[in-house]
Amino acid sequence: MSLLVVGSVAFDAIETPFVKTDKIIGGAATYIMLSASCFVDKIHLISVVGGDFPKETLKLFQEKGIDLSGLEIQEENKSFFWSGKYHQDLNSRDTLVTELNVLSDFNPIVPDKYQDCEFLMLGNLTPDVQRSVITQLRERPKLVVMDTMNFWMDTAWDSLMETLKLVDVLTINDEEARQLSGEFSLYKAALKIQKMGPRFVVIKKGEHGALIFHKDEYFFCPAYLSIDVIDPTGAGDTFAGGFVGYLYQLSKQRYIAFEDMKAALVFGSVMASFCVEHLGPLGLYDVKKSDIEQRFAIFRKMVTI
Amino acid sequence: MSLLVVGSVAFDAIETPFVKTDKIIGGAATYIMLSASCFVDKIHLISVVGGDFPKETLKLFQEKGIDLSGLEIQEENKSFFWSGKYHQDLNSRDTLVTELNVLSDFNPIVPDKYQDCEFLMLGNLTPDVQRSVITQLRERPKLVVMDTMNFWMDTAWDSLMETLKLVDVLTINDEEARQLSGEFSLYKAALKIQKMGPRFVVIKKGEHGALIFHKDEYFFCPAYLSIDVIDPTGAGDTFAGGFVGYLYQLSKQRYIAFEDMKAALVFGSVMASFCVEHLGPLGLYDVKKSDIEQRFAIFRKMVTI
Repeated sequence: MSLLVVGSVAFDAIETPFVKTDKIIGGAATYIMLSASCFVDKIHLISVVGGDFPKETLKLFQEKGIDLSGLEIQEENKSFFWSGKYHQDLNSRDTLVTELNVLSDFNPIVPDKYQDCEFLMLGNLTPDVQRSVITQLRERPKLVVMDTMNFWMDTAWDSLMETLKLVDVLTINDEEARQLSGEFSLYKAALKIQKMGPRFVVIKKGEHGALIFHKDEYFFCPAYLSIDVIDPTGAGDTFAGGFVGYLYQLSKQRYIAFEDMKAALVFGSVMASFCVEHLGPLGLYDVKKSDIEQRFAIFRKMVTI
Repeated sequence: MSLLVVGSVAFDAIETPFVKTDKIIGGAATYIMLSASCFVDKIHLISVVGGDFPKETLKLFQEKGIDLSGLEIQEENKSFFWSGKYHQDLNSRDTLVTELNVLSDFNPIVPDKYQDCEFLMLGNLTPDVQRSVITQLRERPKLVVMDTMNFWMDTAWDSLMETLKLVDVLTINDEEARQLSGEFSLYKAALKIQKMGPRFVVIKKGEHGALIFHKDEYFFCPAYLSIDVIDPTGAGDTFAGGFVGYLYQLSKQRYIAFEDMKAALVFGSVMASFCVEHLGPLGLYDVKKSDIEQRFAIFRKMVTI
């Protein structure tokens, strides 16, 4: 019984109006796992890194309850590397460098001990790789959450459509939702995307919050008003990790209703707020349960009339 | 006893990805008044139009309880005209034409019968004109709400600072709040702007909602998720009109607390949602109390966990 996370574990180099880094730890799965580990004791990872990836970071992952049996280490190869520069408003960024390295022929293999996975979180990867993991699982997980991006809409449309049919929740940003659906109205976009497969559509709007749609119902969660945003890298993945992590631990106790998904959206936003207040994933290493509860209360107060 | 509205009554020509108009009725005060009139019986207007402004529209204003004693009609001159084209995302626009006409030497005169004004709403105009109205009032209104824009920060900084000292509530968009304060964080920006005069700072974020700050407290209201947005023109003014209109009618019944300002933010957003679903101010002509209440309930449901 576990939450299975699939995605990149990698290096990033980040430039914002406030800060510029050399190579630091990054990758969608890194943010997802660190965030989800605040809710979940046991996480299984499927990913690939090169020989350059620091062993002490892997040790740290293990200390957070993350099982690395599904992590392939290609000692002779290099880890995935992404470098980006944020614009003044922090809402958009330019990619400066993308070195696929180990990801260029990533062929994920689901270890036997991962077959009991109950929740599956697919971080942004090629839809082929995402689908390969789903189809390797002999029993379908209770909840499959998938993240994607516009790049796959441009380059792998058919595969994306095949994969979407197999998932329960799609997380996507507002611009991508519009591109995927061809609808400007997010309400209409969410209805159309539901017809592609996912019963739940989460639309992420960065500093403007997030929406979840299910049939014609929806719920909105604002972003936390951080006093200082340092680095938005990984915020969307951290959000997804909090969302799926909260739901997974709750599913151990009871049946999950749409109301719980709403709360999960808030927990995702809480986790993202810790992320953006620090560089890279640093803000996620030492989040306490009491920090999460306190910020959840602030979210509630922020919108209650 | 009345709500006094100061601002432009004008013509607009609008181009959105969905629609293109000839000259239609526009102007900040038009949107503010039509919106506020859904809450308030008696509104006083100070503005100026040319001989080209349709008399039937003025009659319609009067039918809505708007007193036009303070409306100067320069028969030989033309009304203010603005033309703009919205970008694909509807969040930004280019100004195509600005003809000041009657506004170029607008010198507002407060009629004696307006001296009992209790709430003053200053639509976007030169800060000189806005201040002139405040200082003409022998008794300070209980609440002075002011809208402004980046143009006055660029061209009339000192006058803007003088005027800000005299107001209770500033409504401003997020980009402008950052420019006015020199702070990227909206939280820090709002604290700094409060030091310039306004005890309350409302930050409008268009389709991403609105925030109100008072000291270090704040409240967030999302924008309504309209199925189709036709034309965002006037949404900010409509929002301000709903905000001040709701507060004014409430002030007749009881002392206004910050909690009431939160509700006013939601009523402002409700009114803005009716506005954007139609061309120009058309969506504001026939709003029923039950429509407003119904949409208020949707707002509440949208954020409640």
